[in-house]
Amino acid sequence: MSKKGILIIGAGGVSRVATVKCAMNIDTFEKITLASRTISKCEAIAADILKNQGVKIDVVSVDADNVDELVKLIEKVNPKLVLNVALPYQDLTIMDACTKCGVDYVDTANYEHPDEAKFEYKEQWARDKQFKDARIMALLGSGFDPGVTGVFCAYAQQNLFDEIHYIDIMDCNAGDHGYKFATNFNPEINLREVSANGRYWENGQWIETKPLEIRVDHDYPEIGVKASYLLYHEELESLAKNIKGLKRIRFFMTFGDSYIQHMNCLQNVGMLGIEPVEHQGQKIIPIEFLKTLLPDPASLGPRTVGQTNIGCIIEGIKDGKPRKVYIYNVCDHQECYRETGAQAVSYTTGVPAMIGSKLLYKGIWKNTGVFNIEEFDAKPFMDELMTQGLPWKILELDAE
Amino acid sequence: MSKKGILIIGAGGVSRVATVKCAMNIDTFEKITLASRTISKCEAIAADILKNQGVKIDVVSVDADNVDELVKLIEKVNPKLVLNVALPYQDLTIMDACTKCGVDYVDTANYEHPDEAKFEYKEQWARDKQFKDARIMALLGSGFDPGVTGVFCAYAQQNLFDEIHYIDIMDCNAGDHGYKFATNFNPEINLREVSANGRYWENGQWIETKPLEIRVDHDYPEIGVKASYLLYHEELESLAKNIKGLKRIRFFMTFGDSYIQHMNCLQNVGMLGIEPVEHQGQKIIPIEFLKTLLPDPASLGPRTVGQTNIGCIIEGIKDGKPRKVYIYNVCDHQECYRETGAQAVSYTTGVPAMIGSKLLYKGIWKNTGVFNIEEFDAKPFMDELMTQGLPWKILELDAE
Repeated sequence: MSKKGILIIGAGGVSRVATVKCAMNIDTFEKITLASRTISKCEAIAADILKNQGVKIDVVSVDADNVDELVKLIEKVNPKLVLNVALPYQDLTIMDACTKCGVDYVDTANYEHPDEAKFEYKEQWARDKQFKDARIMALLGSGFDPGVTGVFCAYAQQNLFDEIHYIDIMDCNAGDHGYKFATNFNPEINLREVSANGRYWENGQWIETKPLEIRVDHDYPEIGVKASYLLYHEELESLAKNIKGLKRIRFFMTFGDSYIQHMNCLQNVGMLGIEPVEHQGQKIIPIEFLKTLLPDPASLGPRTVGQTNIGCIIEGIKDGKPRKVYIYNVCDHQECYRETGAQAVSYTTGVPAMIGSKLLYKGIWKNTGVFNIEEFDAKPFMDELMTQGLPWKILELDAE
Repeated sequence: MSKKGILIIGAGGVSRVATVKCAMNIDTFEKITLASRTISKCEAIAADILKNQGVKIDVVSVDADNVDELVKLIEKVNPKLVLNVALPYQDLTIMDACTKCGVDYVDTANYEHPDEAKFEYKEQWARDKQFKDARIMALLGSGFDPGVTGVFCAYAQQNLFDEIHYIDIMDCNAGDHGYKFATNFNPEINLREVSANGRYWENGQWIETKPLEIRVDHDYPEIGVKASYLLYHEELESLAKNIKGLKRIRFFMTFGDSYIQHMNCLQNVGMLGIEPVEHQGQKIIPIEFLKTLLPDPASLGPRTVGQTNIGCIIEGIKDGKPRKVYIYNVCDHQECYRETGAQAVSYTTGVPAMIGSKLLYKGIWKNTGVFNIEEFDAKPFMDELMTQGLPWKILELDAE
């Protein structure tokens, strides 16, 4: 029986968006199966899609840490493609199951876990031969950043520049959830992003910075000026390798003064500690207790208003003259929530996950081995972004 | 057998200072007995005094919540005076034991518990007849504020003014313990001070303010400009009654921006909550867990540097002309620690406790009933301050 349909593994916010979007493209995907350890989460997403879109999603339980179980699931479902939107540390088990079953693989490279990402590419790239031998393909990092940011760079390289010298990826979440302090996801991950050393690539070398050392007040189109801090982000690793002639690439993310102030205060009193503290005869891990006190990130969706703006400022040479462009997408939290039941942080990752899957499914992107997103023709992905909910704009900036 | 010596009840930081100072004045006090629930704390203070000053202190255990036990202790020790530097909620049991035994009573009115103080005076003043009947005297609030601040006002009334119209009590702790955030005492008490409504007295009425609503940037002599916030403080109640002709009296205390910022952040995330929170099957009270995380206030003494400046700005009329004076004391944390093993917050309370006791013990202040400190001749107290470690200065300010 020939392979058919898409198997989506994971049932969080990103999965919700990707599955809704796959259902909107059911003429491409033919059949959608949603698998997660907790089947009730799959059922909730499937019920919403059946009700709102009239598309039936199959649901099944799986332990994505277990390769044998994954192999059995993939053999049974027999999909053309596996989309991994599960937890980041399950990337390798799912990739290994795909090579055993001879099924293409897509992930979103887990924007939420930047500190682990540097290891991830190494481990994932190391599976290139395994994928080539199985004559299948893995597409890594088909979210927004990584993902769309790589597509923007590839599009610029292929269509707008003869040489690219400088790339700044600018990630702004100007959403407001109305709480004095809350985190969009696990506070432990948030902390890691804010408190880790920064890193960027220049002239073939990685340059490390202190946490929040480099700040720029950047004017985000349609949003305004926001304090933005240089962080390390995983797409820097693949783009530094894949964009030829590059002299420097950096990544900036916005954090509000109040967010940083709260983080600093919590750090100062020890509330971000990850070691157990003896308290009245009990062992308490401070950051876990903080998580208990803070609003549940899942509860922020309906109350978050405002936009995100993520894009790339790219400088280089075209026809012998300096050129500078700004390619970006603006996404509205409330519109995302109305369409998919998730806010923009999940939406901007889930939509590109579907688009990458669609290009592989239709054979528009086709190869054998393990690839990052900027290694393909960007045009069809850019076209899909326009119609699938993440339209982009290009601003021509003053070069020099 | 005639009464002799002083019985000091309580063995915290203020008691340490008061007992050291009583030992320095052993020619006045003749015999010193130190009593507390935890006798080891008394023994530690007594051992230091024997070693450093060669004065022997008797120690004994007592439950200061229990009037009968207190009566038995007082009968056995047979002192001329009881100095109460125990916990504030033990004031009434100790006062009642004193009336039963016919022994004079002094306390420091527990600056540390301003919110409870308003009830305290009412309950303590109500014992006036009981003290009169026993032909003994209670001196309330012989610490710094209340205490020395009342003496400053009385001194001004008796010596510097014909009429006093305005009093601002200015309390600055410019000490630095080197921690990004720590509290000088129980964080729950700190919180109560900062987050409670403010209150001041004007034209015979109490006027309530929102927490931290009224801020002045005040230039403290020998320290500099510090943000100071209007709070309610217990001496306002007695001074508004005892300083005749007064039009307004207020109290200001310094809090650093960083202190307030940390308090606000902790409040925003729920860490100041006093209700139990369900956390991983356990009940945790957030502010108690915060207390566990923060440095032990007792550990701050050796590391706190800098000064306190507490004083009164007093305006009125002298010889038909407007007059304005600033009477204040500057106290150095490290000097206090070297002399007594406690920092300035304890020192500035413990020294006046000894001085008030000395004036009663020698019969310089003498009466029957319950009194606040400003009801006596301020001169002998002011003289003692000069030589016992809390010298004061008077600045003549521009009136109008």
